[in-house]
Amino acid sequence: MSGSSRLPPAARAILRGDRRALARSITQIENGEPSAEPILASLYPRTRGIPVVGIAGPLGVGKSSLINALIARLRSHGKTVAVVAVDPSSPFSGGSVLGDRIRIERRPDDEGVFFRSMASRGASGGVASATLEAARLLDAAGFDVVLVETVGSGQVDVAIREIATTSVVVLVPHLGDEVQTLKAGLFEIADVFCVNKSDLPGADTAKRDLDDLVAQGTHEGRWTPVVVATSTIAPTGIDALWEAIESHERFLDSSGARTASERHRLTVEIVGLVRERVGRELAERLEGDRELRTLLDQVVARSLDPRTAARKLHLGFPRDE
Amino acid sequence: MSGSSRLPPAARAILRGDRRALARSITQIENGEPSAEPILASLYPRTRGIPVVGIAGPLGVGKSSLINALIARLRSHGKTVAVVAVDPSSPFSGGSVLGDRIRIERRPDDEGVFFRSMASRGASGGVASATLEAARLLDAAGFDVVLVETVGSGQVDVAIREIATTSVVVLVPHLGDEVQTLKAGLFEIADVFCVNKSDLPGADTAKRDLDDLVAQGTHEGRWTPVVVATSTIAPTGIDALWEAIESHERFLDSSGARTASERHRLTVEIVGLVRERVGRELAERLEGDRELRTLLDQVVARSLDPRTAARKLHLGFPRDE
Repeated sequence: MSGSSRLPPAARAILRGDRRALARSITQIENGEPSAEPILASLYPRTRGIPVVGIAGPLGVGKSSLINALIARLRSHGKTVAVVAVDPSSPFSGGSVLGDRIRIERRPDDEGVFFRSMASRGASGGVASATLEAARLLDAAGFDVVLVETVGSGQVDVAIREIATTSVVVLVPHLGDEVQTLKAGLFEIADVFCVNKSDLPGADTAKRDLDDLVAQGTHEGRWTPVVVATSTIAPTGIDALWEAIESHERFLDSSGARTASERHRLTVEIVGLVRERVGRELAERLEGDRELRTLLDQVVARSLDPRTAARKLHLGFPRDE
Repeated sequence: MSGSSRLPPAARAILRGDRRALARSITQIENGEPSAEPILASLYPRTRGIPVVGIAGPLGVGKSSLINALIARLRSHGKTVAVVAVDPSSPFSGGSVLGDRIRIERRPDDEGVFFRSMASRGASGGVASATLEAARLLDAAGFDVVLVETVGSGQVDVAIREIATTSVVVLVPHLGDEVQTLKAGLFEIADVFCVNKSDLPGADTAKRDLDDLVAQGTHEGRWTPVVVATSTIAPTGIDALWEAIESHERFLDSSGARTASERHRLTVEIVGLVRERVGRELAERLEGDRELRTLLDQVVARSLDPRTAARKLHLGFPRDE
């Protein structure tokens, strides 16, 4: 590999397929360690833009079983898979994280599957940004597909749009009523709807309701979400689910939407990183800088309100040149 | 009220006790409307610093019933109460939000109780910041206590520390094992632990486990969390719960911790507001500004990585002077 001798040793190890080096670098990203920076910078040009498939949905719809089934499907077709389980980092979601962790079948003897959970312990732009960066390392490491599972519920479900190239929203038959309520929210997220546990009563109705919903929201030139029914007991529908994902990935290329959405994703990411930097710098200076401390004193004394203080700080924010 | 003739009409209405004006202003905060700004600025000096009590905990532990019981307790002692239910704004938490909304008993004929749910629809600093600002309006409006309920799970549970003066973590007996796992996370949050549904088997053990946990974490000069057992069926323990909250509020005053934690809360809030401003401005400029667009092009072309782009933007961030 030409030029790889100039890469940091950890980056070279990741390109070689060293799984421990990969895991260690992801931990550095997760912990917000500066040592992750040269690794990310040097591997970024080596990313190919592989599919990053988000699997979102309420607790208890069987996301983990579905992921196991997708892994089996992909492996039988010779594809390598990395799974990233994203934890929105509420202490209360801890239970479910642990639960989900156990439910994903680890395959320590299969080098073609890599599993990793992510929390937002100090990652610079939060857990969404850390997941994006981890997905890039996985891309550079040569994986064919990254599956991102959101664990628990929370803002990460929405942030999946900022991470995934294709988003799958998983529902179960009895959530039909909720679908009506959540219409708008779901449409913002889903490229593919998956009615899982389709062996349960009501699955046909749920699928039909979703098909109707999708038909209402169809727009010329835009992607029309695909609805698939799956069950992980038999299992059934897993091929159809993967084909729906692949057809969305093909649409991204043929329509030119991939570049546009990647551009949007990068904008959000970079803005997030700058915000984070500004915030970190400002927090330090509010403690240390005398002038800024006086401003804070005024707010504490209620002679200045927080928004006005923020405006003053923003306008007067000095350049570090 | 001297000087109130200079206030914006909406602010004057809120001070007069006009509930509709209050609700409208909170909606403006929630939607990130600039019209909220003069109202917040003019009412900020009139806030007294009333107790803002966060009620956090996993789904299904009975937070809403507990809040109903606390409202009854406070009303019978002549105190007015505002309840703010915070929705972390996942489309998937929609169901539980609706559920909780129904479970809180509305008292349209009691002017001493105000109920409001909050989502982060475009609020400048996110839902935590919007909730803080809403609590200030409620303070200025004359309420004696604000109860903040976190709905669903997610990052808001952690953010309760940035909103509440006293945080109550509600658990139920069978969550005993989880407590062990979540130890650190819970301690970061809780001033008061509440073992609700204490009529269920295992309540004594759960309370004892928490007492042990608390005893291990005791530090001279710092607040030691209080553990109370409650049930909303009988109801029992509600007085003890309120007394635990009040004793923490008294501790904040006697120890001087109130000023320190308010200062910290305001720092976090102001930094968040500045970050938001910087982010908004930058996002606009990444689209419009030619130089910045070129930078983004380089990142899209993978000749520059996102973190390096963020560093360049941060260092060169021009002042608007």
